[in-house]
Amino acid sequence: MVTIEKVEAGAAAARAMPRLPRRIKDDALRLLALRLRERAPELFEANEADVAAARASGASEAILTRLVYDGKKLEESIAMIDAVSRLPDPSGRTLESRRLDDGLVLRRVSCPIGLIALIFESRPDALVQMAALAVKSGDAIIVKGGREAERTNRALAAIVAAAGVDAGLPSGWLVQLETRSEVARLLALDGLVDLVIPRGSNEFVRHIMETSRIPVLGHAGGVCHVYVHGDADIAMAVAMVVDSKAQYPAACNAVEVLLVDEAAARSALPELVGALERADVALELCPRSMAVVGPGPTRAIKDDDDWSVEYLSLRMAVRVVGSLDEAIAHINRYGSGHTDAIVCSSGEAAARFMAEVDSTSVYRNASTRFADGYRYGLGAEVGISTGKLHARGPMGLEGLQTYKWLLEGEGHIVSEYSSGARRFIHEDLAVGKGGIHG
Amino acid sequence: MVTIEKVEAGAAAARAMPRLPRRIKDDALRLLALRLRERAPELFEANEADVAAARASGASEAILTRLVYDGKKLEESIAMIDAVSRLPDPSGRTLESRRLDDGLVLRRVSCPIGLIALIFESRPDALVQMAALAVKSGDAIIVKGGREAERTNRALAAIVAAAGVDAGLPSGWLVQLETRSEVARLLALDGLVDLVIPRGSNEFVRHIMETSRIPVLGHAGGVCHVYVHGDADIAMAVAMVVDSKAQYPAACNAVEVLLVDEAAARSALPELVGALERADVALELCPRSMAVVGPGPTRAIKDDDDWSVEYLSLRMAVRVVGSLDEAIAHINRYGSGHTDAIVCSSGEAAARFMAEVDSTSVYRNASTRFADGYRYGLGAEVGISTGKLHARGPMGLEGLQTYKWLLEGEGHIVSEYSSGARRFIHEDLAVGKGGIHG
Repeated sequence: MVTIEKVEAGAAAARAMPRLPRRIKDDALRLLALRLRERAPELFEANEADVAAARASGASEAILTRLVYDGKKLEESIAMIDAVSRLPDPSGRTLESRRLDDGLVLRRVSCPIGLIALIFESRPDALVQMAALAVKSGDAIIVKGGREAERTNRALAAIVAAAGVDAGLPSGWLVQLETRSEVARLLALDGLVDLVIPRGSNEFVRHIMETSRIPVLGHAGGVCHVYVHGDADIAMAVAMVVDSKAQYPAACNAVEVLLVDEAAARSALPELVGALERADVALELCPRSMAVVGPGPTRAIKDDDDWSVEYLSLRMAVRVVGSLDEAIAHINRYGSGHTDAIVCSSGEAAARFMAEVDSTSVYRNASTRFADGYRYGLGAEVGISTGKLHARGPMGLEGLQTYKWLLEGEGHIVSEYSSGARRFIHEDLAVGKGGIHG
Repeated sequence: MVTIEKVEAGAAAARAMPRLPRRIKDDALRLLALRLRERAPELFEANEADVAAARASGASEAILTRLVYDGKKLEESIAMIDAVSRLPDPSGRTLESRRLDDGLVLRRVSCPIGLIALIFESRPDALVQMAALAVKSGDAIIVKGGREAERTNRALAAIVAAAGVDAGLPSGWLVQLETRSEVARLLALDGLVDLVIPRGSNEFVRHIMETSRIPVLGHAGGVCHVYVHGDADIAMAVAMVVDSKAQYPAACNAVEVLLVDEAAARSALPELVGALERADVALELCPRSMAVVGPGPTRAIKDDDDWSVEYLSLRMAVRVVGSLDEAIAHINRYGSGHTDAIVCSSGEAAARFMAEVDSTSVYRNASTRFADGYRYGLGAEVGISTGKLHARGPMGLEGLQTYKWLLEGEGHIVSEYSSGARRFIHEDLAVGKGGIHG
């Protein structure tokens, strides 16, 4: 099939998906888990071929680790599918209801967005996660994975798509694209595709945002901060900063800039810097922080004002700030609005930090690495949105829904209200019963 | 001030607005209403000059009617401001809350979007409506009204902006632009402006969507339908269709295409056509409907397949369809996803229509003209969104909010969960208490 035919099949499936009752969607999830286990041998074979090819082409250990789809990853996928199947149906829920007048009742009801294109990087388990969320949300999806995982993704997509169809989903509910030129053609089909969610390098995400007229949700940068307040518990600050940076430095929620209040600089900076260096983190220090800790083999003076660098590696910037206000202003100016944390004892400082930092996730005394759909209890995530519209932060089932307004009358017409013959009563009704299916 | 300075002032105000307690916002609304009444004479004088200039330049009666801002419009504005002040504060609400582990609590909390540019057409009362919603939502706004209402808008914006500042809003909370070149410069400032809401001609809205990288919410077309099902009450259908078309044909929620089921064509079409013609509506009929009603002085055969025309006048298209399925398919293919209605007695047909028509508002036995924020009980609206993301249909206070995730821990780090030393408990907590202000 050429790309336009695949996308049209997806759009047709998207029109049929909202009709599906929860039973069929949960059956599809169960069958999907069953088929993945049944056909594990061919999955593992495809994955071993991908891993061997990547190793032969000199891929790093980090890439190889992400690429592996083995028995452990399979069991994680199956546990995730099971968790998603047990979540309530996000679609067809009455979100608000109002009696406008006698016999005239308005409801706002959740429904799937439609056809969503998911363009992701090397991890093949992401495909299963996105497919499970799409089944439950009632959205049709187009998936395009990384080239390194080509064989694994092809096997996974075939198994997953067929399991869904066998359980009663419309054919076309999961469409796979395989080449970059297919993605380029897809991005021009703004009449058919409702949303693009890209995961990958910042350049790639920005390129998609700039070239397509289809709405894009995702993030083009994770410049996260930890701010150590003057009254912070230093041992807590050290553990949090090391975890935020070194636990998995390639993640978008890893911290890039450490801000230390001048009230804590003398007491906390030496321990912070020492612990980071023991975790192999190289540091770019502002002159004031360098003056406190002195030079060292992996310490350099940060000699520019570019505080928006996303290192994504064992490297970070350190800056002394004069106050809570200065910390908040720094984060709102140089950050990417992803995830930022304060370490402090004072409730007042925390409350101001949490109210005034304009990011998707704002933390008090917790590692920035918690910013993740699974850790938030959303079951899984299709990505993290740093936009302010629609979905913000980890996007799970709720981020995959929109809503429509349903109005049921008895022949009500507007001219009676314009003339003053009738007046609106606008009585809010209890919600929770009755969805889109009547 | 040059445009960039105005927009920067707006962005600075947007950073300060989320801190405002409800008391200051409601005080600002009260002062705003008071000042409008106090300074009514100069408002009316400015408006009379605008109306005189428009009349001299040959503006139509429809435009003049929209342009008038007199004692009646002022009282409507004041009643609207009062209604908005009595709505609950949409900001700082805890939308969900979850205990991730002992001492680690996640909350999703509503907050304002930030700086929103509102570009609207001739009606000056729209400026007051948007300003009132912005005060309550905690968003800073940039307003640009139609040129015909230049003097009125300048007077209104000055009074409204000063009243807000005197009540404690940050200066820059309402910034006025006056020229098209200022709008062009604004549209390039995607780092400062969070959202553009344009109201105006379809060409204008599409132009903004295509030229700016700032997210745009609005609608680029209102091709609305009424479908008369085979079992419809004919008298009800006639009243609904006439109201949907003729009550105010220039509105985006006015109906453009009447679909009549072939089971109702012989019985209903003659009455429908007769009533529409008595309301001065000219008709473009499909061959099958022309065969039923025969020719007439304002009836023409629709000789093309362009069923997506937005007439916005006393003209409409009529088509006979073979079934409910055909009606739904027609609407999803040719409609603009705005507002579509079915007239029917059968609950089953209505349920399928409401589930399967993919529009912001789907009605059973009610006029399409109900699609409006005030009529929906939202207090007012900044516009109607036909996009599927963020806000759909009339956008009131809720559409002007986003949210952030707040996580409060006791030094929790992720490596303890990755290693298996600790496990998430993910216990949903009751919401409703405690907002962003702690």
